[in-house]
Amino acid sequence: MFKDIQPQEIDQVMGRAQEAFLQYRRVSGTLKSAFLEAIASEIEGLGPALISKAMEETNLPEARLIGERGRTCNQLRQFASLVKEGSWVEARVDTALPDRTPVPKVDIRKMLVPLGPVVVFGASNFPFAYSTAGVDTSSALAAGCPVVLKAHPAHPYTSELVAGAILRAIEKTGMPKHTFQHVHGASFEAGKGLVQHPHTKAVGFTGSFAGGKALYDYANQRPDPIPVFAEMGSVNPVFILPGALKARSESVAQMVAGSITQNAGQFCTKPGLLLSVKGSPLDQFAQQLDEKLKKIAPTTMLHAGISSNYQKNRTRALAQKGVTLEAESEERPKENQGASTLASVSAGDFINNPTLFEEVFGPYSLLVKASTMEELNAAVRKMPGQLTATIIGEESELVQQAEFIQLVMERAGRVIINGVPTGVEVCPSMHHGGPFPATTDSRFTSVGTDAIKRYARPVCFQNFPEALLPAELKTPNPLGVWRLFDNQWMK
Amino acid sequence: MFKDIQPQEIDQVMGRAQEAFLQYRRVSGTLKSAFLEAIASEIEGLGPALISKAMEETNLPEARLIGERGRTCNQLRQFASLVKEGSWVEARVDTALPDRTPVPKVDIRKMLVPLGPVVVFGASNFPFAYSTAGVDTSSALAAGCPVVLKAHPAHPYTSELVAGAILRAIEKTGMPKHTFQHVHGASFEAGKGLVQHPHTKAVGFTGSFAGGKALYDYANQRPDPIPVFAEMGSVNPVFILPGALKARSESVAQMVAGSITQNAGQFCTKPGLLLSVKGSPLDQFAQQLDEKLKKIAPTTMLHAGISSNYQKNRTRALAQKGVTLEAESEERPKENQGASTLASVSAGDFINNPTLFEEVFGPYSLLVKASTMEELNAAVRKMPGQLTATIIGEESELVQQAEFIQLVMERAGRVIINGVPTGVEVCPSMHHGGPFPATTDSRFTSVGTDAIKRYARPVCFQNFPEALLPAELKTPNPLGVWRLFDNQWMK
Repeated sequence: MFKDIQPQEIDQVMGRAQEAFLQYRRVSGTLKSAFLEAIASEIEGLGPALISKAMEETNLPEARLIGERGRTCNQLRQFASLVKEGSWVEARVDTALPDRTPVPKVDIRKMLVPLGPVVVFGASNFPFAYSTAGVDTSSALAAGCPVVLKAHPAHPYTSELVAGAILRAIEKTGMPKHTFQHVHGASFEAGKGLVQHPHTKAVGFTGSFAGGKALYDYANQRPDPIPVFAEMGSVNPVFILPGALKARSESVAQMVAGSITQNAGQFCTKPGLLLSVKGSPLDQFAQQLDEKLKKIAPTTMLHAGISSNYQKNRTRALAQKGVTLEAESEERPKENQGASTLASVSAGDFINNPTLFEEVFGPYSLLVKASTMEELNAAVRKMPGQLTATIIGEESELVQQAEFIQLVMERAGRVIINGVPTGVEVCPSMHHGGPFPATTDSRFTSVGTDAIKRYARPVCFQNFPEALLPAELKTPNPLGVWRLFDNQWMK
Repeated sequence: MFKDIQPQEIDQVMGRAQEAFLQYRRVSGTLKSAFLEAIASEIEGLGPALISKAMEETNLPEARLIGERGRTCNQLRQFASLVKEGSWVEARVDTALPDRTPVPKVDIRKMLVPLGPVVVFGASNFPFAYSTAGVDTSSALAAGCPVVLKAHPAHPYTSELVAGAILRAIEKTGMPKHTFQHVHGASFEAGKGLVQHPHTKAVGFTGSFAGGKALYDYANQRPDPIPVFAEMGSVNPVFILPGALKARSESVAQMVAGSITQNAGQFCTKPGLLLSVKGSPLDQFAQQLDEKLKKIAPTTMLHAGISSNYQKNRTRALAQKGVTLEAESEERPKENQGASTLASVSAGDFINNPTLFEEVFGPYSLLVKASTMEELNAAVRKMPGQLTATIIGEESELVQQAEFIQLVMERAGRVIINGVPTGVEVCPSMHHGGPFPATTDSRFTSVGTDAIKRYARPVCFQNFPEALLPAELKTPNPLGVWRLFDNQWMK
């Protein structure tokens, strides 16, 4: 096993990250692009050894891990394209008006520059896509920020393998030596030390509310607070409108059952709440969903801690007033396994019990039965911020419920119609964020190319000689980036 | 005088703001634009009565206030154009790929939506441009957020007049009734109550470090933290390179003297530090600057509190080890007046004394004399975050000092070459922000059209029927906004 990083080592590591920053921040988009591409190739080059190590450490199935590795390399390549193309810096140019009265206007230009060294915390449930070379690392490196990655203690050897790939990419593409550093630490002290080090300029985290909120508070308690983007999970409500239940309850049950239980429900986008209006269509749907969940066998969870938390949180949820166990896996769970579970509760009991709005991380969902649409509306009004919210309905009823959809949207970062929240597409239009407590800042995303914006800040160049301007801001636009030039978008 | 808002009233006001939000958030860009234009016209319609009330309450001269009113209306009109044009929502569209393997891609779209009710704190030193209808208010209204404005207690009647103009604009353009509300409160309790109310979704503040940091901490202590953009001032270092001193010390002294003392130095961008390398050119410059400052008469400051703080902070700065009084206004200051002051110190004494890096709000500046450029570099490394940093030099020496300029840029939001930091242009390329403690979040600006981004968050629309999409995201692009459509920028 690996020892936790000690305070003196943190100081050395962050000092080296700062030194690397002074070099790395000037590396061109083209060279950063080659570096990110090289990381992807090096990860692919690790071949089946990486997959089997990850299987061993996370209990996730091979196909899922192969898919996740693909997503991770795809993310790296999307950021590579983004920085090669260059328009992400949001360049604005306002040229001088020397004859303006009463005061002449000077030449002013602006673009995004990297914040500085970023500390990233690997996530347990995504050993690749949200860990060592995951989206936090790739977006920070794309922005021009060196990364210090704290490996998740549940998959340290997988993390070491990926870190090795990044270090080889650094060497092969001639990046500054300490552009990426890999450290270990299971204690809160290690995390606190990294977040509070003076050279740390931003933090990326995906994980539990307790973990994310602690890092957020550490950052705010610094003499100079720094931004923390923590994605802290969500219950991801799914609203099922009556028309859809009447028309296709069987297929909805099928889709929802898969989304609840896929990879033991260990996704921050797992639908942990299903909400609908009482009646025989809902009774039928519940029965269909029950049948399906009973047949879905318990699955081994990521690690013993996750599994025991699942048992604890599930038991706590089932013990709440009015909550009934609807169905669970017929097969009994073995050690570290999580049984697929559906509970139900009336909207009346649900609305006034904040515990039932909390995430139960694992293959669990709670069916909330409302008497009327008004009661569903009332439940939405009490709902804390969510990464996602889903509405399943027939086209005509969706249009009738435009007001309701608007209300749901107030509380979520992504709204899905007739789908499931699991399966997050990596593309420019994706938003993986949401109002607190889903994340610490609803204005940023941790999936998609806009994730880079977390790690960059604008700098304004006033009256600069052409020779001293960065390429993105030079008058002839040598990089051909999209710019707002004298208030017109152009290349 | 006006009574402080009481807790029960805060609850009523924020409840009405939330109600207004549910309506106002759907108002089209065209109608919001007409509303912002109407505010500008109504303010202009107040005529000289507004200017004389502001003169009475702030002691600022007429010409300055007329200019500031112009800037305020210009800001409102820039935001009006921005939301009418519509591309500010950063729309991204990724269309479906139903035949993609192994999994089909669904249709995903994204745009910015308003955060919710915003609480804005008026600033004492800008009764128009950073107060009632200032940039925080206009950017929040442009984003689609209702505003609750806490008037600055130093100019409550000016604030009432401007608030009246906004309320008339609401009525004339048919906006939801409580889209803007005006409240009073001089106590920390009033500010705390407004920032911590559950309906408040963001905060805008311009003022002192103590005030801004307190609001920031209140917001972070909420059960659901919210973003606070606080601009908390800056010392705005001006680095004068040796070549410029040799070539044109007289004109540099003239320019700098004006920037230090304009409106009694009551700008967050006032140059509070001048740094250069020892030698006869610097001695000559110091003498020229001394002469000019001596002749600049003391000016009445904004209010008694500002004036007594100036005396206190100036005295404290002058009492620091190694600090010498170089020059002050020959004319003695009368009550509430601030004397133009230049102090000097060696870089050695400066670097190790954090007190000397603190802002002295008023017509004061400290000349730091370094033995070498290396010593100037060392001073920069110790410097906390700044709104601005200025470098005055001849073109050839600027190019030689590219490394030094880069180092300075790490610590500032705006870098000015051969100019002064006062006089903030309102345009898309302006950045009025900077690393902590200049602001609470270096990624945002409070001047220029990008100020709107503080008050909006992305929402992702997955698999939405065309009928339910907002206009900005509909496939035929009826508003003609710039969008990233299948990874291509187009209208």
